[in-house]
Amino acid sequence: MIKTLPPGCQKLLEAKCRSGLTFEAIAKKVGRDEVWVAALFYGQAQPSKDDINTLAALLNLSAETLVEDFVFSGLPTRGGLIETNTRDPVLYRFFEIFQNYGVPLKAILQEKFGDGIMSAVNFKMHVDKVPTPKGDRVKITLDGAFLPYKPW
Amino acid sequence: MIKTLPPGCQKLLEAKCRSGLTFEAIAKKVGRDEVWVAALFYGQAQPSKDDINTLAALLNLSAETLVEDFVFSGLPTRGGLIETNTRDPVLYRFFEIFQNYGVPLKAILQEKFGDGIMSAVNFKMHVDKVPTPKGDRVKITLDGAFLPYKPW
Amino acid sequence: MIKTLPPGCQKLLEAKCRSGLTFEAIAKKVGRDEVWVAALFYGQAQPSKDDINTLAALLNLSAETLVEDFVFSGLPTRGGLIETNTRDPVLYRFFEIFQNYGVPLKAILQEKFGDGIMSAVNFKMHVDKVPTPKGDRVKITLDGAFLPYKPW
Amino acid sequence: MIKTLPPGCQKLLEAKCRSGLTFEAIAKKVGRDEVWVAALFYGQAQPSKDDINTLAALLNLSAETLVEDFVFSGLPTRGGLIETNTRDPVLYRFFEIFQNYGVPLKAILQEKFGDGIMSAVNFKMHVDKVPTPKGDRVKITLDGAFLPYKPW
Amino acid sequence: MIKTLPPGCQKLLEAKCRSGLTFEAIAKKVGRDEVWVAALFYGQAQPSKDDINTLAALLNLSAETLVEDFVFSGLPTRGGLIETNTRDPVLYRFFEIFQNYGVPLKAILQEKFGDGIMSAVNFKMHVDKVPTPKGDRVKITLDGAFLPYKPW
Amino acid sequence: MIKTLPPGCQKLLEAKCRSGLTFEAIAKKVGRDEVWVAALFYGQAQPSKDDINTLAALLNLSAETLVEDFVFSGLPTRGGLIETNTRDPVLYRFFEIFQNYGVPLKAILQEKFGDGIMSAVNFKMHVDKVPTPKGDRVKITLDGAFLPYKPW
Amino acid sequence: MIKTLPPGCQKLLEAKCRSGLTFEAIAKKVGRDEVWVAALFYGQAQPSKDDINTLAALLNLSAETLVEDFVFSGLPTRGGLIETNTRDPVLYRFFEIFQNYGVPLKAILQEKFGDGIMSAVNFKMHVDKVPTPKGDRVKITLDGAFLPYKPW
Amino acid sequence: MIKTLPPGCQKLLEAKCRSGLTFEAIAKKVGRDEVWVAALFYGQAQPSKDDINTLAALLNLSAETLVEDFVFSGLPTRGGLIETNTRDPVLYRFFEIFQNYGVPLKAILQEKFGDGIMSAVNFKMHVDKVPTPKGDRVKITLDGAFLPYKPW
Amino acid sequence: MIKTLPPGCQKLLEAKCRSGLTFEAIAKKVGRDEVWVAALFYGQAQPSKDDINTLAALLNLSAETLVEDFVFSGLPTRGGLIETNTRDPVLYRFFEIFQNYGVPLKAILQEKFGDGIMSAVNFKMHVDKVPTPKGDRVKITLDGAFLPYKPW
Amino acid sequence: MIKTLPPGCQKLLEAKCRSGLTFEAIAKKVGRDEVWVAALFYGQAQPSKDDINTLAALLNLSAETLVEDFVFSGLPTRGGLIETNTRDPVLYRFFEIFQNYGVPLKAILQEKFGDGIMSAVNFKMHVDKVPTPKGDRVKITLDGAFLPYKPW
Repeated sequence: MIKTLPPGCQKLLEAKCRSGLTFEAIAKKVGRDEVWVAALFYGQAQPSKDDINTLAALLNLSAETLVEDFVFSGLPTRGGLIETNTRDPVLYRFFEIFQNYGVPLKAILQEKFGDGIMSAVNFKMHVDKVPTPKGDRVKITLDGAFLPYKPW
Repeated sequence: MIKTLPPGCQKLLEAKCRSGLTFEAIAKKVGRDEVWVAALFYGQAQPSKDDINTLAALLNLSAETLVEDFVFSGLPTRGGLIETNTRDPVLYRFFEIFQNYGVPLKAILQEKFGDGIMSAVNFKMHVDKVPTPKGDRVKITLDGAFLPYKPW
Repeated sequence: MIKTLPPGCQKLLEAKCRSGLTFEAIAKKVGRDEVWVAALFYGQAQPSKDDINTLAALLNLSAETLVEDFVFSGLPTRGGLIETNTRDPVLYRFFEIFQNYGVPLKAILQEKFGDGIMSAVNFKMHVDKVPTPKGDRVKITLDGAFLPYKPW
Repeated sequence: MIKTLPPGCQKLLEAKCRSGLTFEAIAKKVGRDEVWVAALFYGQAQPSKDDINTLAALLNLSAETLVEDFVFSGLPTRGGLIETNTRDPVLYRFFEIFQNYGVPLKAILQEKFGDGIMSAVNFKMHVDKVPTPKGDRVKITLDGAFLPYKPW
Repeated sequence: MIKTLPPGCQKLLEAKCRSGLTFEAIAKKVGRDEVWVAALFYGQAQPSKDDINTLAALLNLSAETLVEDFVFSGLPTRGGLIETNTRDPVLYRFFEIFQNYGVPLKAILQEKFGDGIMSAVNFKMHVDKVPTPKGDRVKITLDGAFLPYKPW
Repeated sequence: MIKTLPPGCQKLLEAKCRSGLTFEAIAKKVGRDEVWVAALFYGQAQPSKDDINTLAALLNLSAETLVEDFVFSGLPTRGGLIETNTRDPVLYRFFEIFQNYGVPLKAILQEKFGDGIMSAVNFKMHVDKVPTPKGDRVKITLDGAFLPYKPW
Repeated sequence: MIKTLPPGCQKLLEAKCRSGLTFEAIAKKVGRDEVWVAALFYGQAQPSKDDINTLAALLNLSAETLVEDFVFSGLPTRGGLIETNTRDPVLYRFFEIFQNYGVPLKAILQEKFGDGIMSAVNFKMHVDKVPTPKGDRVKITLDGAFLPYKPW
Repeated sequence: MIKTLPPGCQKLLEAKCRSGLTFEAIAKKVGRDEVWVAALFYGQAQPSKDDINTLAALLNLSAETLVEDFVFSGLPTRGGLIETNTRDPVLYRFFEIFQNYGVPLKAILQEKFGDGIMSAVNFKMHVDKVPTPKGDRVKITLDGAFLPYKPW
Repeated sequence: MIKTLPPGCQKLLEAKCRSGLTFEAIAKKVGRDEVWVAALFYGQAQPSKDDINTLAALLNLSAETLVEDFVFSGLPTRGGLIETNTRDPVLYRFFEIFQNYGVPLKAILQEKFGDGIMSAVNFKMHVDKVPTPKGDRVKITLDGAFLPYKPW
Repeated sequence: MIKTLPPGCQKLLEAKCRSGLTFEAIAKKVGRDEVWVAALFYGQAQPSKDDINTLAALLNLSAETLVEDFVFSGLPTRGGLIETNTRDPVLYRFFEIFQNYGVPLKAILQEKFGDGIMSAVNFKMHVDKVPTPKGDRVKITLDGAFLPYKPW
């Protein structure tokens, strides 16, 4: 999959692998959430020039080349990493959750917020690891603006 | 869609409509999260007898009939409410989020937790409405056990 | 297709047929755009109580029943009227336009507006008929808010 | 995606990137709409020899080679840039609009124009950026000939 | 399949069956081509009031009811009679012809006519039966306007 | 697409491009219909040795190598040039015609010829350009043997 | 599945069930192969009037009504009994055979017969049961005319 | 397609092409049916060492290398040569036969043999060319063990 | 789903529900494995007359009617209960297991058994519940005949 | 398929082929089940460093390089080896088993265990070869934790 990413992303992923740094550690340096940083590394987000400079310094890459890479490949092409009917067990569980609970969730959103959607663009997400006696729990927080439909 | 649900679910949804109660209000009475209650009403969860008794009393339904309905239709058939390529704008945004951020998220999960998945069965979710000056935000929390792969 | 619409929509479409009124005429009375009115009649939009009262009066329907119909069937279920691979020649042309010009259009949007999308929710559209010596032309105006992606 | 375009298109896109010119600026020089120019750069339109000469001069390319490129790759192969079920958020919104409003729109077209279609061949489109206090709005105008069905 | 057609079409097909008339005989009376008449009977074309009157008289149907049927069901919904991957041997051969010869045909059209399409709307077709010593041959003539693409 | 054709076909198409000859001109020399010649150039037909010799002489190719190319790649693999759900506007119109008029056409075939099919193998087709005051018309003639079903 | 067959076929299948006759026994009476008779009963073949009379007499049905049924439902609609990706184990094996051996078989056909196809219309098939010490074997014979492709 | 076969198969096919031998001639030498030999050449069957030695001698190949090729690529990967919805006219007819006659055939199998399947593994097939005054006929014999379902 | 089963199966399932008996208890009485009994109740297996008599006696059903039901609906139609891309979480896990471990399993089968398949017809399966301190484990045993491929 | 595996897996498979060792023999040395070892070789499982060291020693590979390979390619990407609608006869039988017996099995699981799933993550499987007078039988044992759904 990595070979289908734009060159700038490939360089970032390889440099991260060499550095041994986690996304969490990188995110702290860049001052962003680790999910957004991972999204950037996988070609799903657009960095500012400052982001690029910080990353280049941190990962021993040429900032100048990296900026060029991102300018050349243009804005990110989102949504193409996986097929909808993915058979990857990790990703499948995410889709299963909304396959099961999506309609109930929609009913609640409409009851609480009215006629509209949760934006996937004006949006951010965060992951926490919650240790419990029975093992770790994954806590993912989705946070998106509510966009109402309006007549015209 | 309601007509494809088991009879017990149809009765619950109609009675809720007549009562004017929200899922939030019902959930408080039942002592459950409103997402789980909505999941139950849409045939995606399995109630205990106590849950059924409380709901019957609250919504003016015959507890006896409701228990029979749920016994007769057996355990819930999950995952069949929508097609994967749903074109419903509300539901689509949920799938879009994981279409875009699923692979970065998987990279972070594997970095933080190791080789495994977030369970969609040992799992719960919650919705909050967060008002801001620029309008409401939807905050959805996914909370699932981490299940590691182990050699054998 | 009409039989798959919620009862309120079916009543509106039948009453419109009986009345002989065009969407344009109805839209003027309701004070809305005719596209939005047609979207309402086909179950793709949510009317206010005032909208319902005006429509009921105009089309000789019981306002009380109509309000109930719309309350009972809840918020609109959008996007399910047609399959994506529609073979209807009128609808197919709309998809063909974006199949051909979608990517160039995206390049221009990103150049003019930056990294983001045109909203399909904070959105309105309008149709004009433009007579020319060689026959009529259809002019459709799409008007949606630009939503930028932002890092977090 | 750029690598799947014909060589002439690849040269145009690379030269545009080097030049720093926008489609809008190029379009003014060529005397065409920027959407058509972008369509040409992405292999969805067919240039005249004059168009090629102007573009070659503007972007420092050999007009002779460029003409040959376009002659060799023949007329444009339209419609193959994206899959119908595209998961690109920008493109998806265009399809969502017609998934939701296509049928109402068809009803209005047939009411206003009679039995026929809006041509996607005898067709042009234009994009405007409309600043508002709440942010920019995207205004896209579709303009196609109405083609009536006739018995024979 | 007949049960999915609009009521007016069902009446026409049943009355034709009762009358024992062929499409050819009916077409001569109506003054149209038999393919267009069959298209009308299968809900793929729109009759004028004169067409309806002639047909009603010929097939012993109430002209008044028939007009109402066609007004009520609106303009024809084309293209929905069969799935694209039809397995009907008669229909499959038509698709096979263009699956095999479509690309060569496109090359010839572009060579003879330039950049554009053969219209499927400004279009008519005709069938002839050509007896030969080795058996009958089917001769189908497709006749559509050439629509050129033009820059804008 | 040309790169997926057998080597002999690629040579023919490149040589045709260099020669500037049209399919019509080549067809006259070979003594075949131009559709069949185009089908041959796109790998959908099987040439005789005489056909190959004439083509080699006409297009300045080595007849010996060309014969070997066609022997080596064996008989043509038909039907693989395009996907059924093609989004190419030229090709789509052909499929749209039979999507709309296929069932009516089948009804007429069965009425005129009985229970059977029009062969797509014992088959030929021809294209004419018919100029009219309102522009050119494309006239395509399909000519196939009728094959009856018989009990056994 | 039986409910989706035309009325004449349903009557035949029910009468066969009542009579306790096998397809083999019926076929002998009608003077046809049992596969063709079964094809007729499942709506995949067209009977002559003589066939209908024999069947009606044999199965205690009204010949007059049966003729009307077959006239009314018209010629058979073939190929719609099963989906291509059938999961029925009996039917799947047939498709598996040609999934595995189809390409080798095609190579042999082309070697033995030249460029062409085995007709599925000018075609018959037969089933034999061959007992062996290790159990029965199924022997199916496919017998179709070879149709050659010819240039034009 | 040949390029996707294992190296041993490619060598066999190329050597066969050079030798000018037919599958029938090769099959006689190997002492196998020509369909099985073709299946082997297309990677759908597994040769014994004796088969490989005979083939190597016959086709001027190194037996040692050929054995290694078959050991290295392991047992055959069956079923992947074509897609189910193949558009190849030769292969399509095979699928059409079972699309039309599969269900009648299943009814006959169950009547003659009981509850079970015809094996596609304990299976062989054979092709005959039957000349007739009206042209050649293709006769294909499928011969598979009947496997009964049994309760447990 | 139950409504799509043959009448005999529906009666068995309803009677089982009334009786309160488990599949395990029924299986003991019938002298079969509970998986086979459940397969029978869901229309995936064929009972003997003895099986039907025992079941009728056990579940208070008319043996005579039940036999008729099974004779009338004929042999079981297997494989149609669920779609391949099932989204049911219980069923999905079974497919996921073979999606992940199917290819390694095939490698082992071929190493241990040679070139062939595990039969799904000459086959039985069994379920055990294995309590452990950390909760129950599901143990499913698949037991099928190995069928070797043989040349011919 | 082997070429799409990560480099570490390719090295393991090639070294195994050279060594002539079976998965069973390797598994005994590593102290794991042969299915898990095969899963590791096909990129469906994650080895410990000890596993890698043992394998490297056994198969004459550089342990250092092998560790790097597995670190570099990260955790395994499961589920991508085959498509769901696989046509491989060996793999198809596994899917057929659950296509037929999946729903009955689910009914039994729910009866024996309650509302929940058999885990495909907390899971192991084992293969036995059971010789019988009528030939070998394949015995596959699936062993997964039962995960119950719980309200929240």
